[in-house]
Amino acid sequence: MARIFLKTLILRTSLEYLRLHVTFSSTATTRLSPVIFCSSFLQSCSWQFGACSRKLHVEADGPKPSPAAAPDRLPFSTVTQEDLAFFSKILPGRTVTDPDLLESSNVDWLKSVRGSSEVLLRPQTREEVSQILRYCNGRNLAVNPQGGNTGLVGGSVPVYDEIILSTALMNKILSFDSISGILTCQAGCVLENLSLYLEERDYIMPLDLGAKGSCQIGGNVATNAGGLRLLRYGSLRGTVLGLEVVLADGQVLDCLAMLRKDNTGYDLKQLFIGSEGTLGVITAVSILCPRKPKSVNVVFLGCENFEQLLKTFKLCRGMLGEILSAFEFLDSECMRLLNTHLKLPNPISDCPFYVVIETSGSNPTHDGEKLHEFLEEAMTSSLVTDGTVATEDTKIKALWSMRERITEALIHDGFVYKYDISIPVERIYQLVTDMREHLGGRAKSVVGYGHVGDGNLHLNITSPVKDPALLAAIEPFVYEWTASCKGSISAEHGLGLKKRNYIYYSKPSQVVAMMGDIKAMMDPKGILNPYKTLPDNLK
Amino acid sequence: MARIFLKTLILRTSLEYLRLHVTFSSTATTRLSPVIFCSSFLQSCSWQFGACSRKLHVEADGPKPSPAAAPDRLPFSTVTQEDLAFFSKILPGRTVTDPDLLESSNVDWLKSVRGSSEVLLRPQTREEVSQILRYCNGRNLAVNPQGGNTGLVGGSVPVYDEIILSTALMNKILSFDSISGILTCQAGCVLENLSLYLEERDYIMPLDLGAKGSCQIGGNVATNAGGLRLLRYGSLRGTVLGLEVVLADGQVLDCLAMLRKDNTGYDLKQLFIGSEGTLGVITAVSILCPRKPKSVNVVFLGCENFEQLLKTFKLCRGMLGEILSAFEFLDSECMRLLNTHLKLPNPISDCPFYVVIETSGSNPTHDGEKLHEFLEEAMTSSLVTDGTVATEDTKIKALWSMRERITEALIHDGFVYKYDISIPVERIYQLVTDMREHLGGRAKSVVGYGHVGDGNLHLNITSPVKDPALLAAIEPFVYEWTASCKGSISAEHGLGLKKRNYIYYSKPSQVVAMMGDIKAMMDPKGILNPYKTLPDNLK
Repeated sequence: MARIFLKTLILRTSLEYLRLHVTFSSTATTRLSPVIFCSSFLQSCSWQFGACSRKLHVEADGPKPSPAAAPDRLPFSTVTQEDLAFFSKILPGRTVTDPDLLESSNVDWLKSVRGSSEVLLRPQTREEVSQILRYCNGRNLAVNPQGGNTGLVGGSVPVYDEIILSTALMNKILSFDSISGILTCQAGCVLENLSLYLEERDYIMPLDLGAKGSCQIGGNVATNAGGLRLLRYGSLRGTVLGLEVVLADGQVLDCLAMLRKDNTGYDLKQLFIGSEGTLGVITAVSILCPRKPKSVNVVFLGCENFEQLLKTFKLCRGMLGEILSAFEFLDSECMRLLNTHLKLPNPISDCPFYVVIETSGSNPTHDGEKLHEFLEEAMTSSLVTDGTVATEDTKIKALWSMRERITEALIHDGFVYKYDISIPVERIYQLVTDMREHLGGRAKSVVGYGHVGDGNLHLNITSPVKDPALLAAIEPFVYEWTASCKGSISAEHGLGLKKRNYIYYSKPSQVVAMMGDIKAMMDPKGILNPYKTLPDNLK
Repeated sequence: MARIFLKTLILRTSLEYLRLHVTFSSTATTRLSPVIFCSSFLQSCSWQFGACSRKLHVEADGPKPSPAAAPDRLPFSTVTQEDLAFFSKILPGRTVTDPDLLESSNVDWLKSVRGSSEVLLRPQTREEVSQILRYCNGRNLAVNPQGGNTGLVGGSVPVYDEIILSTALMNKILSFDSISGILTCQAGCVLENLSLYLEERDYIMPLDLGAKGSCQIGGNVATNAGGLRLLRYGSLRGTVLGLEVVLADGQVLDCLAMLRKDNTGYDLKQLFIGSEGTLGVITAVSILCPRKPKSVNVVFLGCENFEQLLKTFKLCRGMLGEILSAFEFLDSECMRLLNTHLKLPNPISDCPFYVVIETSGSNPTHDGEKLHEFLEEAMTSSLVTDGTVATEDTKIKALWSMRERITEALIHDGFVYKYDISIPVERIYQLVTDMREHLGGRAKSVVGYGHVGDGNLHLNITSPVKDPALLAAIEPFVYEWTASCKGSISAEHGLGLKKRNYIYYSKPSQVVAMMGDIKAMMDPKGILNPYKTLPDNLK
């Protein structure tokens, strides 16, 4: 493959110095201000797309509290000594009340939301989860289910004093069928551990995320995580075959099927996929895993403009066809942050746009030939200006880190306003350009990257410190822009605490009302992950 | 490819005489007795897995009415002249009351279920559907939504006098995005028409069924149809991106997103996928379509036993990898029926088992090489004993017809008892063998075919005429066998009328109860497709 590539592109072989980093870095020490919990305003306001959001953000007398801020605490009970005694009895040694130990579970990875929970429960079985929830429901105690706490919308941490129910100790693999590729495991299994387990058995997980070293499969499913392989293997709605869930009242719902096809009634597990722990606590997952590809190649290319990048994507889909497994992009601002904050050097010459293309196939010779033909065509037609290719695992990881570590680089840049937008792929970068123009010099950095193949843009805006005036300039502009092209204001991150009140930009009121009906039916007291996913103004 | 294949297998070139047939044949004239509507027994019985079903079927004093039979008519209103006047006003010329015209909509394709509806409504827009349902809900009139009426479990026809709401005239393509491959259309578009439309634009539908000439996309989605391409492109739960649905009270639920990713709240459209028209009437669909493959090959192989067939499957998955798009099987009994009733000759020498393998890829040379290597290995290791290959469209269709026309051949064989079972692939044929042994000489034919790649067996049993004693020997044996290996009693056909009371063999009672809660929430009067999907003993 390298020989072929030399013919068309400047081959870069000095990728070894790129530091490998596939999990979140512990060097991310920037401490950002916690969200100010305020505003009972939202509860009384009739939140509707457009009018109200505009009023909240662009009134002449200055910015009002963001709809992302937490509403007032709901009238749940508070944890008593009797409650703690009960938890300690059913979870001896796994009922944590030490504030130091609770610290990392009370704050999200971005350090943007901080709760004040005083108890963390670490069950090991679905029966323990069931006992906990039955008790909490009876006592009207709010519960925050927590996986790897890698969420980006404040969905994985308590807002006030909710009991944190961690799935971390539910980390057993229950079964793996090497003929069908169906894996069944507890919800707390870390994604990377599952990947390693499967790779030894010639399979892979159908999803891959930058957070794989920390995130848990239960959390992945609860947030319907997308990630880097969705283009090839589809969403969790297709690959998750079964779930075991504990409902708010402690009832265990066994939908843990291990079958590719099952049309016996409504597919209830789908309700829990992407519901962010608001409808039930996922305790086990069965998932269909693809075969480990025999051949993987990664290419890092540069494009002169976004139009060329889109043409490269179209060409790539046609010529790489069934072996294309990822088509990601980053802009030159992302590259600047990677260089500056993480000292990751650009593996190719400076370009306005960069593309990471991955192929996964069953025949290295065929894959190499397809890739060569594609690259030759892309070069001949001047769609790409520079590039490098990797076929070895170390180099592949190094190239991938240019895409996977952008989130980390952003944290070093300042306070980050994150947007995760799904729009028709032709318009994907226009939002970044328009936002830059709209904000002028008010932002420190405005960067765009994401999953071209899925029409999913990650728009990130940084400022030296938290800046309500900047936020008021960004929102609702970004949501109105997205709604104007019928996009989604949260492609894969979910709504959590931060985006819940913006749901109407992507969903009509009847749809949101029905979500509320389902929540009311399944969790009548609302104890599961309150203040998340659904807007404050639901009945 | 032909040259390559000659080296390893006996190349058969005389496939032209195989008659092409991709839709249901109008020659299927066998008239079978309608279901006898009887038994209020089920409504009062506490239907639980095992005990009760056994009691119904194997009591010493002879067979009792099958749980597949309809329950008593529920207390819906009956259609009056005023109702007809209303319908005629909103649907001028599209309110059908002529019994001759109603005939084909009152009976299912298998002629196994017959209703007695006196009115068929043919709306063209969602607004008309909304008006109809609002009116019917107010008047407490039951409604049977109907697509192409190709269902196999009695879900698509009225049981008593329900108003038939046909989607046939809602057949407009609304949009197609040639960059993303996202198609949006009304629910009544016939699958084959959509396929033809897309093929002209270099795309294909992600599903393909034997019934494609009649079935409609709305019905496909409402029944979560599987079909022949699921192995490659996954289920409709992943490929359907959005739905527009009219609820029982006439409210329009707009979930018609055209985005690959959208995590803004609960994914309500999933409730309607596979709910068989019991929760709402699907009026429009958006669906992600794959690129049309540049190269398609079909191979028809013979195996000495099912173990060799499974080994062939495993080898095939490893060596064909990402280009494998179907792996179907039929047994020698299926071949006998194809020969006898449809005069389709066996394209290869007689074998106990036959396999249809399809590859779809982007590079004909690479695909040919992969296929050649696989076939060489399969022959060398004696996994297959004979075979033929097709690369041209006509021959491909001819080979496919050996698989697609089995349902039709069965109808000519007599009264058909159909089972659609999902079990771990290793055990897929054991059920056929066990059933043959169990029934002895009581059945005319016991045949097995289906989707090996999905672990989905179609077990069919025929008798000269409808035979309650034979049915009592088949059921609950078949369901107990399936439940014993945690299988699904309906992999892709759904539950409809015929299988509704068997749901507990595949779903725990808590899960079924929650389905009932959802039905009660979304259709409080139960007017939508009554007597279907959910068991009779729900509260």
